[in-house]
Amino acid sequence: MATANDFSFSGLNIPRNTGNRVGSNVTLLNVDQIPGLNTLGISLARIDYAPNGGLNPPHTHPRATEILVVVEGTLYVGFVTSNPDNRFISKVLYPGDVFVFPFGLIHFQLNIAKTPAVVFAGLSSQNPGTITIANAVFGSDPLINPDVLAKAFHLDIKIVNYLQKLFGGNSE
Amino acid sequence: MATANDFSFSGLNIPRNTGNRVGSNVTLLNVDQIPGLNTLGISLARIDYAPNGGLNPPHTHPRATEILVVVEGTLYVGFVTSNPDNRFISKVLYPGDVFVFPFGLIHFQLNIAKTPAVVFAGLSSQNPGTITIANAVFGSDPLINPDVLAKAFHLDIKIVNYLQKLFGGNSE
Amino acid sequence: MATANDFSFSGLNIPRNTGNRVGSNVTLLNVDQIPGLNTLGISLARIDYAPNGGLNPPHTHPRATEILVVVEGTLYVGFVTSNPDNRFISKVLYPGDVFVFPFGLIHFQLNIAKTPAVVFAGLSSQNPGTITIANAVFGSDPLINPDVLAKAFHLDIKIVNYLQKLFGGNSE
Amino acid sequence: MATANDFSFSGLNIPRNTGNRVGSNVTLLNVDQIPGLNTLGISLARIDYAPNGGLNPPHTHPRATEILVVVEGTLYVGFVTSNPDNRFISKVLYPGDVFVFPFGLIHFQLNIAKTPAVVFAGLSSQNPGTITIANAVFGSDPLINPDVLAKAFHLDIKIVNYLQKLFGGNSE
Amino acid sequence: MATANDFSFSGLNIPRNTGNRVGSNVTLLNVDQIPGLNTLGISLARIDYAPNGGLNPPHTHPRATEILVVVEGTLYVGFVTSNPDNRFISKVLYPGDVFVFPFGLIHFQLNIAKTPAVVFAGLSSQNPGTITIANAVFGSDPLINPDVLAKAFHLDIKIVNYLQKLFGGNSE
Amino acid sequence: MATANDFSFSGLNIPRNTGNRVGSNVTLLNVDQIPGLNTLGISLARIDYAPNGGLNPPHTHPRATEILVVVEGTLYVGFVTSNPDNRFISKVLYPGDVFVFPFGLIHFQLNIAKTPAVVFAGLSSQNPGTITIANAVFGSDPLINPDVLAKAFHLDIKIVNYLQKLFGGNSE
Repeated sequence: MATANDFSFSGLNIPRNTGNRVGSNVTLLNVDQIPGLNTLGISLARIDYAPNGGLNPPHTHPRATEILVVVEGTLYVGFVTSNPDNRFISKVLYPGDVFVFPFGLIHFQLNIAKTPAVVFAGLSSQNPGTITIANAVFGSDPLINPDVLAKAFHLDIKIVNYLQKLFGGNSE
Repeated sequence: MATANDFSFSGLNIPRNTGNRVGSNVTLLNVDQIPGLNTLGISLARIDYAPNGGLNPPHTHPRATEILVVVEGTLYVGFVTSNPDNRFISKVLYPGDVFVFPFGLIHFQLNIAKTPAVVFAGLSSQNPGTITIANAVFGSDPLINPDVLAKAFHLDIKIVNYLQKLFGGNSE
Repeated sequence: MATANDFSFSGLNIPRNTGNRVGSNVTLLNVDQIPGLNTLGISLARIDYAPNGGLNPPHTHPRATEILVVVEGTLYVGFVTSNPDNRFISKVLYPGDVFVFPFGLIHFQLNIAKTPAVVFAGLSSQNPGTITIANAVFGSDPLINPDVLAKAFHLDIKIVNYLQKLFGGNSE
Repeated sequence: MATANDFSFSGLNIPRNTGNRVGSNVTLLNVDQIPGLNTLGISLARIDYAPNGGLNPPHTHPRATEILVVVEGTLYVGFVTSNPDNRFISKVLYPGDVFVFPFGLIHFQLNIAKTPAVVFAGLSSQNPGTITIANAVFGSDPLINPDVLAKAFHLDIKIVNYLQKLFGGNSE
Repeated sequence: MATANDFSFSGLNIPRNTGNRVGSNVTLLNVDQIPGLNTLGISLARIDYAPNGGLNPPHTHPRATEILVVVEGTLYVGFVTSNPDNRFISKVLYPGDVFVFPFGLIHFQLNIAKTPAVVFAGLSSQNPGTITIANAVFGSDPLINPDVLAKAFHLDIKIVNYLQKLFGGNSE
Repeated sequence: MATANDFSFSGLNIPRNTGNRVGSNVTLLNVDQIPGLNTLGISLARIDYAPNGGLNPPHTHPRATEILVVVEGTLYVGFVTSNPDNRFISKVLYPGDVFVFPFGLIHFQLNIAKTPAVVFAGLSSQNPGTITIANAVFGSDPLINPDVLAKAFHLDIKIVNYLQKLFGGNSE
């Protein structure tokens, strides 16, 4: 029998550690954390950004749109539309600003202030999924054949090898 | 051609006026406020609660689940399941607590502290709709035949008349 | 292996007992009664109304639209739209009249004739759910804090206590 | 602005004329008859059957499941499952019996009593569509090449020609 | 843990045996053949047609639209719209031609050349289902009462008996 | 009034020009090319690959799963799952092999033979969209701030500038 615990979660007020390479930390509450979300089509996230460049790097949610509100900080955010236009829609956000990242599009947020930033975000799925582009492309397990990536990204094979060493075995 | 303005909104950091009868104020950003949400299946709200009993009164969203996070304050929240059980699932929430109100169920939030409260909430539709029970039942335009309400709620007809006078012509 | 029994049900021609407080009786055939309905997105109901005021009291279906046809009797029916308009759309129905209650909205039917009434209704879900407003609000298990209801419905606390005694422990 | 007329229809109590070749008459109320059904995912039908063999001939609804209740009469009904089993699930129905015809499957109803029969049916779409097999196959406009039908149904070409003459130019 | 085998299938380049009564052979890869398709909403088919009249006889997919491309051969294809129009939309297709058969409608393909024909087709469901009209109508298990079919198709009962003998017990 | 032209397209048998930087060419037939696909949930593509390394570079479809069949050639294909695993599921495909790229995941195909390759693919949307990762990330219009990309991909800013010059203003 369902209880309040199946529909709740605590501690989203506590700043997360952003002492990692990109300087950001996503706390996503999906159906794995809140079982009562099953079939209900929504989830919630807190994202923390380190001062001076904390970045939630370019990523997509394969099964969700995201809408966020800035609680604290100054963020440069944007998304890129599909082929053939690849239009980049961006904005600098301040506390109280809201922004939408449409279903499946590549998007990111960058902290451009000298203080930490925090947002809350709703996502339109109980299991939105996240694909961090750099990690999926250069850090998959096993690695993608480096020739594919060198050709796709027009990069020297040595740079691809370097990136695969960096991102590989590390789904950060 | 779509621009960043179609996907954004500002000012959700500003406390709303809660000087009304119930002592709460919902600022919902749906597809009417953010046209870029069209077909994307999500919206976002800020809710302010007055100290000492600010109440977001019992209501439903006919087309959405809601998930909220408490930014500030102490809230007694809950929802009631469908017939025949009508189970009341409730909890007292503190800053950082998250709670889910499943699709279509009656729910409310009450500020039980001496200070204001604020939450942010995601809703799983670009047009969730809100039905405030008291207003829909006793304050519709035109009014429902009072005999229906007297019988349904087992209330004296005078009390129904009083409530219809109070809620009628006023969708507060 | 599925058989005809998984897709059928008998006895919907038999008048139901309407000798209860509200004077109505809903016989809903959903996926629990007809297992073959699983995933098929529809269910069927018969509703009986006592003469002289039999009432199917204000309620919502959290997961369905309802369309009914009057087989016998005279019914005053209606639904209320969402905030902020709370428009009440109503009509008196006679045998052969059809009426639609849109997804998730509060609606009711009242027998205004001196003879019994009967309708058949289709609902757009194999598990539509029903939330009887009075029972969910005043008769939940456990009860909602009466201060919430007194404030929400602008009722004296004594009346709330009386209603909770009346509806509580009785999900009729 | 929507009114009650957008959500209602009258006259479904009046027996329909069944003096046609198959001896049945379907009165479907979909979004064309009741504009308020738009996007709401349901419609309603009355079907009349002549005594002694009135037949609602084999047909499918490309966008809906159907659930019916017998108001009057005795009906032999059934549907056929998909390849490779083509199982025929059938039953004789009496007043008060309910039967489900799953999404997209071929089904029919035959009046096997000496008196008229009537059913009401819910369909899980505001625009379910109906494909009467004999009419679509042998009476399309223009006609299908008769060689296709002779081969598909293993019929002599003369019989196909006869059927096309009979059903063609007549979507009965 | 999922592997590439869960998402793949081999051998769709091999011509299928079309030495059957209708002279065609459908190889459908749905979620039963490729388990990774679960919930993903698509499947793929190869269809082979014998020279001089190989026919994929009139059928529907209760849960899918189909889009095909001709790899080899010349096909006369078409579908019939719903009641009341029953419009027959048809075309002769050559290699490289693409054609759409909308959700749930009756359609067929006939090889009108002296050489074999082959198509590949996408279907908009991981489990589209197929209802071959002749087999479902005349070859169900058990058989439909022949009186129903005689009346529905305006056929002499002897012809119905003959067809039921032919198609029955044989879901070809 | 709809005609066969609204449901068809010609010329998908003609090899496309693969003389571009990546050595591949996607011909997607969606609702823009075939208006009859509207609301029907499917589309079809032909993809040509140049010999010796023709690459359909890493991309996603924000609104579709893809299933392809190899008509000619030898392809090394794969997709990467979501965080945190980023598992790379890959396979070498020969003529007649089929492979599924699940909804929204990054995937690619590489021609590893000395001859051209061709596939046909079904996609589970009438408007699947395509996001070519390199073009969206490094070639958007306007360009993303290079600091974001340098940090996200751990690349020297000069390499980012070089890539943006290469991909920018050119949605290839």
